[in-house]
Amino acid sequence: MYLTQTLHRAVQQHPDRMAVRFGDRQRSFAELAERVARLAGALQALGMRAGDRVAMLSLNSDRYLEYQMAVPWGGGVLNPCNTRWSAAEIRFSLEDSGSSILLVDDSFQAMAEGFRREVGSLRELVFCGDGPAPAGMHAYEPLLAAATPAPDAVRRGEDLAGIFYTGGTTGFPKGVMLSHGNLCSSGLGARADGLAAPDGVYLHVAPMFHLADMGCGLAHWFEGNGHVVLPAFRPEDVLDSIERDRITHMLMVPTMIQMLVDHPSMHERPRDLGSLRTIAYGASPISEAVLDRAMAALPGVDFAQAYGMTELSPVATVNPAWAHRPEGRARGLTRSAGRASFISEVRIVDPMDEELPRGSIGEIVVRGPHVMQGYWNQPALTAAAVRDGWMHTGDGGWMDAEGFIYVADRMKDMIISGGENIYSAEVENAVAQHPAVAACAVIGIPSEEWGESVHAVVVCKPRQSVAGDELIALCKSLIAGYKCPRSFDFVDALPLSGAGKVLKTQLRAPFWEGRQRQVA
Amino acid sequence: MYLTQTLHRAVQQHPDRMAVRFGDRQRSFAELAERVARLAGALQALGMRAGDRVAMLSLNSDRYLEYQMAVPWGGGVLNPCNTRWSAAEIRFSLEDSGSSILLVDDSFQAMAEGFRREVGSLRELVFCGDGPAPAGMHAYEPLLAAATPAPDAVRRGEDLAGIFYTGGTTGFPKGVMLSHGNLCSSGLGARADGLAAPDGVYLHVAPMFHLADMGCGLAHWFEGNGHVVLPAFRPEDVLDSIERDRITHMLMVPTMIQMLVDHPSMHERPRDLGSLRTIAYGASPISEAVLDRAMAALPGVDFAQAYGMTELSPVATVNPAWAHRPEGRARGLTRSAGRASFISEVRIVDPMDEELPRGSIGEIVVRGPHVMQGYWNQPALTAAAVRDGWMHTGDGGWMDAEGFIYVADRMKDMIISGGENIYSAEVENAVAQHPAVAACAVIGIPSEEWGESVHAVVVCKPRQSVAGDELIALCKSLIAGYKCPRSFDFVDALPLSGAGKVLKTQLRAPFWEGRQRQVA
Repeated sequence: MYLTQTLHRAVQQHPDRMAVRFGDRQRSFAELAERVARLAGALQALGMRAGDRVAMLSLNSDRYLEYQMAVPWGGGVLNPCNTRWSAAEIRFSLEDSGSSILLVDDSFQAMAEGFRREVGSLRELVFCGDGPAPAGMHAYEPLLAAATPAPDAVRRGEDLAGIFYTGGTTGFPKGVMLSHGNLCSSGLGARADGLAAPDGVYLHVAPMFHLADMGCGLAHWFEGNGHVVLPAFRPEDVLDSIERDRITHMLMVPTMIQMLVDHPSMHERPRDLGSLRTIAYGASPISEAVLDRAMAALPGVDFAQAYGMTELSPVATVNPAWAHRPEGRARGLTRSAGRASFISEVRIVDPMDEELPRGSIGEIVVRGPHVMQGYWNQPALTAAAVRDGWMHTGDGGWMDAEGFIYVADRMKDMIISGGENIYSAEVENAVAQHPAVAACAVIGIPSEEWGESVHAVVVCKPRQSVAGDELIALCKSLIAGYKCPRSFDFVDALPLSGAGKVLKTQLRAPFWEGRQRQVA
Repeated sequence: MYLTQTLHRAVQQHPDRMAVRFGDRQRSFAELAERVARLAGALQALGMRAGDRVAMLSLNSDRYLEYQMAVPWGGGVLNPCNTRWSAAEIRFSLEDSGSSILLVDDSFQAMAEGFRREVGSLRELVFCGDGPAPAGMHAYEPLLAAATPAPDAVRRGEDLAGIFYTGGTTGFPKGVMLSHGNLCSSGLGARADGLAAPDGVYLHVAPMFHLADMGCGLAHWFEGNGHVVLPAFRPEDVLDSIERDRITHMLMVPTMIQMLVDHPSMHERPRDLGSLRTIAYGASPISEAVLDRAMAALPGVDFAQAYGMTELSPVATVNPAWAHRPEGRARGLTRSAGRASFISEVRIVDPMDEELPRGSIGEIVVRGPHVMQGYWNQPALTAAAVRDGWMHTGDGGWMDAEGFIYVADRMKDMIISGGENIYSAEVENAVAQHPAVAACAVIGIPSEEWGESVHAVVVCKPRQSVAGDELIALCKSLIAGYKCPRSFDFVDALPLSGAGKVLKTQLRAPFWEGRQRQVA
């Protein structure tokens, strides 16, 4: 299988159906395929040969979808740049991958000018923004208009489809090499797992450079569904789009779900959100309180969690909709990351790679057709991560009797206070029950007396507030006293990674300066 | 992906769920996996090495499922024998594949004794029937009881999983080589296409040696669903099983559907068939009349057609449930074989392999991860059939504007009478409207006047009959006069191939002896 196969099938079966909508721009599948063939031809005219890396540094737009299809159509390799990284990190990914062409929008035009001077491999810049093209950059629409449509290069399953850089927030970025077979088996698996369904419309609102959105989007490419794109996550825009575009499926991180359902506009201006069928989420479990509010605000919508990583194209486990319904919640299943997806084998192993009994914490390892080809130019890192076919995720976790895995958040997020193990997710769930709390992150901070002490960083809902004492009282009614926060910070927003994960390292940093945490 | 991966996942997620039921025998997934590991160990002890072919010649049973999993678990290659073939044809497939071990049941024990003397490669016979094992054969249960469970050989996607012999009724049997990747991508695709669903129970009632049943069964292996096996198709047994075993999914050929819904027991002894959700069918389109009766007898059941061939592991196109509902039927979609499945690319091409415009009849060709590795020991046949990745089906057909393909039944089944092209399916649909008609096949027979003349072979329902004149009158009310049958034969049953296709060649033979049909 190869990525553009999904586009050919959609054109064969419903050429006139809406394929992509972005603001006022809308294309059918036949129109999209024509534009993809033209962009592929243009990239080839700019020098793209089979296997050449073509980067894109842009906020979400319809052109991101054209890029995702046109580069493989023309035989090239994708390199979508993380827009939340520093210029130094992005420059590294361009240099390391040897990208020769960069597509860039208005927001990153200035940064791209610098790369042109600094990155030796970079030969051509294509301006895919909406204003006039800066000097020395090819303008997107004229480029397409003048191009000769290219025939599909028909890549094979084992051909490289993209290099996806990851790990920028935690260290040295690594280029994850994913083949067409990796991505297609992941997309087909996600489709089979219900992340897409017939006659759906998918809303791209998570960042499109990230594989979470591309992976979920692929399930909709397989189904031949329409794609609606928002440039960035703004709750009102999302709500408007669901109503206007009859959105059926979305992928968000829990923080986005919380911002959406808590937004004043949700209640001040009721919309018809009845088209919505499934919200997939990832990056972290969802708190009970946010799930309660989301299910109340969006009755009839299924929630499903996907856990994985870029190296797994990206889904390893799926926590299905039924686990989010009352019978699953009563069993605590929403704290799980779900079970092996259709294409995944998942195990919990000890440091000798021996499988551990259920309930024992060890490393989560995953095998299947979605395991990356390796890290670009990093054979030693690859050999350390993929052993005997098993991707070693680096995440700790345990598995219950029915194969549900629990990411011990993982591990590093456990707080040890007075010798007791405290899982921050449990404390966060308690704090989040308070009606004034929008979001919350719980960390361990140094304590002379207890080793670590439980500290909560809280975001209140707009125009609401709550005192720390009141939150402590609430927590004491819900969880053991030693688990309750001893101290609080109230902030406007939590720091998030590009993937939408709360950056606890950043929250902990000021407290731990010059010290060493004892937790693994 | 590899076949036994699906068994590991089921054991991880629900070890105690019913995996297999056959008569009084029932096993959970944990029990099944233990037996599979033991059978794999036993086969290895009998000499099976990686890549060795192990044949099975048996009616349907739970042991067929154990065979399907244990051979790949132990690293071997499946060779399921067509039980409807002559001894000479089966012997050929054993010799050609070099099978070294044969599992055989009561029905084929005598035939197997002959093979032991005649087939040089055959070293060991395992008796998987229910009586005492004949002299010189290993008895199944004692063999398992004494065996050391083998570890899973963990075959790779490109490893050979089985050799499936095909074409016995139309000429020289060919061994179709299918890899683990071929079969798993087909099974996952079938799952995504809705041929299996969560919490289902699949009834094996089509012959298990045939890839139609194995392919549909694989969708249920992926889902982790239970399997119920009937030794052969008897309508009362099927109806009893649906009620008793809460069957949700079945695969049948249209003739079996017709026999089921027309069976007196269906009406004389009403059962609770409410568990049934989807009936997949293949081998031929379903007649309007049979579909009407089936939908009336089984309200709420979805019907879906799969078209393909062994060389495609086996599904190429799927005609979805909605095409069988009133809006689809009004558009004539039930005459179609459906549209490209999730994993298939499908085209209609001319003899130069150029794609033809929609509506033009040409050869149906298919590309995807399910295209066979080739014909065993037949490189020239393989090169002729698979060109540039495209499997050339040999079936003629055309495609409509929405990608639905119509198998021109295929080509050879067109009747040319007085210069007019007459498609037998259309005539068959008309004849089958008569309430006394159970099944019908329409062929062209020699006519001095018209070149060919339309002849109908009709099976009446039990205790009913109809005159040819009455059928002609009915047809004239439904289709053009020149398409109506000129002559009739009334028979007890139509001759069927192992795959359940009506053997029109056999029906035509007495009429065409010593003559040459002009139709391609």
